Amino acid sequence: MSKLLIVGTVAFDAIETPFGKTDKILGGAGTYIGLSASNFHIDSAVVSVVGDDFPQEYLDLMQNNNINIEGIEIVKGGKTFFWSGKYHNDLNTRDTLDTQLNVLADFDPVVPEEFKDSEYVMLGNLHPLVQLSVLEQVKNPKLVVLDTMNFWMDHTLNDLKRVISKVDVIAINDEEARQLSGEYSLVKAAREISKMGPAYVVIKKGEHGALLFHKNEIFFAPALPLEEVFDPTGAGDTFAGGFIGYLAKTDDISFENMKNAIIYGSNLASFCVEKFGTERMQNLTSEEIKKRLDEFQKLTKFETNHI
Amino acid sequence: MSKLLIVGTVAFDAIETPFGKTDKILGGAGTYIGLSASNFHIDSAVVSVVGDDFPQEYLDLMQNNNINIEGIEIVKGGKTFFWSGKYHNDLNTRDTLDTQLNVLADFDPVVPEEFKDSEYVMLGNLHPLVQLSVLEQVKNPKLVVLDTMNFWMDHTLNDLKRVISKVDVIAINDEEARQLSGEYSLVKAAREISKMGPAYVVIKKGEHGALLFHKNEIFFAPALPLEEVFDPTGAGDTFAGGFIGYLAKTDDISFENMKNAIIYGSNLASFCVEKFGTERMQNLTSEEIKKRLDEFQKLTKFETNHI
Repeated sequence: MSKLLIVGTVAFDAIETPFGKTDKILGGAGTYIGLSASNFHIDSAVVSVVGDDFPQEYLDLMQNNNINIEGIEIVKGGKTFFWSGKYHNDLNTRDTLDTQLNVLADFDPVVPEEFKDSEYVMLGNLHPLVQLSVLEQVKNPKLVVLDTMNFWMDHTLNDLKRVISKVDVIAINDEEARQLSGEYSLVKAAREISKMGPAYVVIKKGEHGALLFHKNEIFFAPALPLEEVFDPTGAGDTFAGGFIGYLAKTDDISFENMKNAIIYGSNLASFCVEKFGTERMQNLTSEEIKKRLDEFQKLTKFETNHI
Repeated sequence: MSKLLIVGTVAFDAIETPFGKTDKILGGAGTYIGLSASNFHIDSAVVSVVGDDFPQEYLDLMQNNNINIEGIEIVKGGKTFFWSGKYHNDLNTRDTLDTQLNVLADFDPVVPEEFKDSEYVMLGNLHPLVQLSVLEQVKNPKLVVLDTMNFWMDHTLNDLKRVISKVDVIAINDEEARQLSGEYSLVKAAREISKMGPAYVVIKKGEHGALLFHKNEIFFAPALPLEEVFDPTGAGDTFAGGFIGYLAKTDDISFENMKNAIIYGSNLASFCVEKFGTERMQNLTSEEIKKRLDEFQKLTKFETNHI
């Protein structure tokens, strides 16, 4: 069975949406990616760092989902990374109210011995040098997927470009793709970004779906139109976890199979936003995922009728 | 063969985009709808009004595309409706620089005798009372499609609601759907709008595609990711013309067939934006449309793989 190595934050989030407000709850890119990928019942590990204020029950939750947590360093006397944000009424935009890096400031990732030969590596959104360090500890992975964001483009562009040059797939949102490439058209943006390294470019458009670019081919996965979006936090990470989790499970990195990976990413993300934080992802059944996959199929399927 | 009756403006547009600027060129919802629907080689007529400043060559262009223009009144000494707009760099937003209603201010539409038994009626974006007047002149149409915009919601909501209560399909953009329904979620918005009358609700999302709602079913048509969008003017009208033109041609108003209609609408709109004004629509071949239909099929097609 293929192994999946994930690096990403494991954190506390405090979230406010038009529908309610949470105290500090479980959050972080590594957490969402791990929980999402765990739906494929693969061997996965999360590399991260927390303080000793981090509840054991959260670590248990990850272990109970078959996620190896040896690579999650617990810093004695340290405080866990904390992010607090408030979503606007449209849920598409948010203000960051507070960011406390805490133990993340000095994070030196250590990949567990058992996962140094991981075939699949997911570099969750983090400082590019942390992502690089993880990549350097892994031997000959089959597929490396990078998630990043505009913050690193603004502040550490050269480091980020070094990472980008080493990965197979990059997953960023539409505004970030435009910023990184200097091109407004997403078709042109993907082409420019591909020249920087990644053979596959995934552009996430939130409620508007996601695009997968490879050479001259394009695949589009819609987002499922939902009655209610409750909390978008972690949707992008859940998407990435579903994408790479599916690929690791099927161990097939053809463009055809990546289409399904994108659909599984969208599928899992559509659940994530239905409740606060990781709540929905903690109680997700394979039956629910299967049913929603059929909804995705139905949503765009039509029989070509040439006139 | 089914007949298609179209009411909509026939006008002059002056357009400025980041790529260039036009003088007064041929424009108007009725023009774009008519040219788009003409690709299906059906019997269609446009009901509209122009001044005697309107060039004969534009009327010839419509006739050469097999569009009946008996219902286009030419007002002696009158001036044709004129709109001028400037698009922002993202091409998603625009400022109206000038609107001169001219002969449109007193427009009293007269449906040609031959088209009073039209099976298909397209009410292009216009004052709701003009749309109502056209509808009252038609006997037992099989399908009526309404296009409208936020301007009529702001200024003539009660009249608009009377029209909405009489149509089978309404096509509006996402912001307008939210305004009309008071619901942010498009799923909820479509449900509320359907309660006002239309059994089918089409929500246009521009570069993000279009949704078709009917009872509890949803179909999504992506927009084709384009290298270059040159001028978005008329894309929504072209979409509507493709939608109803395809339905009139196939004379099948099942939900399954409406999926193809939405795809044809998106297909034709994707050409419209490639050049200024109606230029691209004037030189479109059935081969090009066929080829692009295959691209639409390829864009979202995947084989369901249950894990």
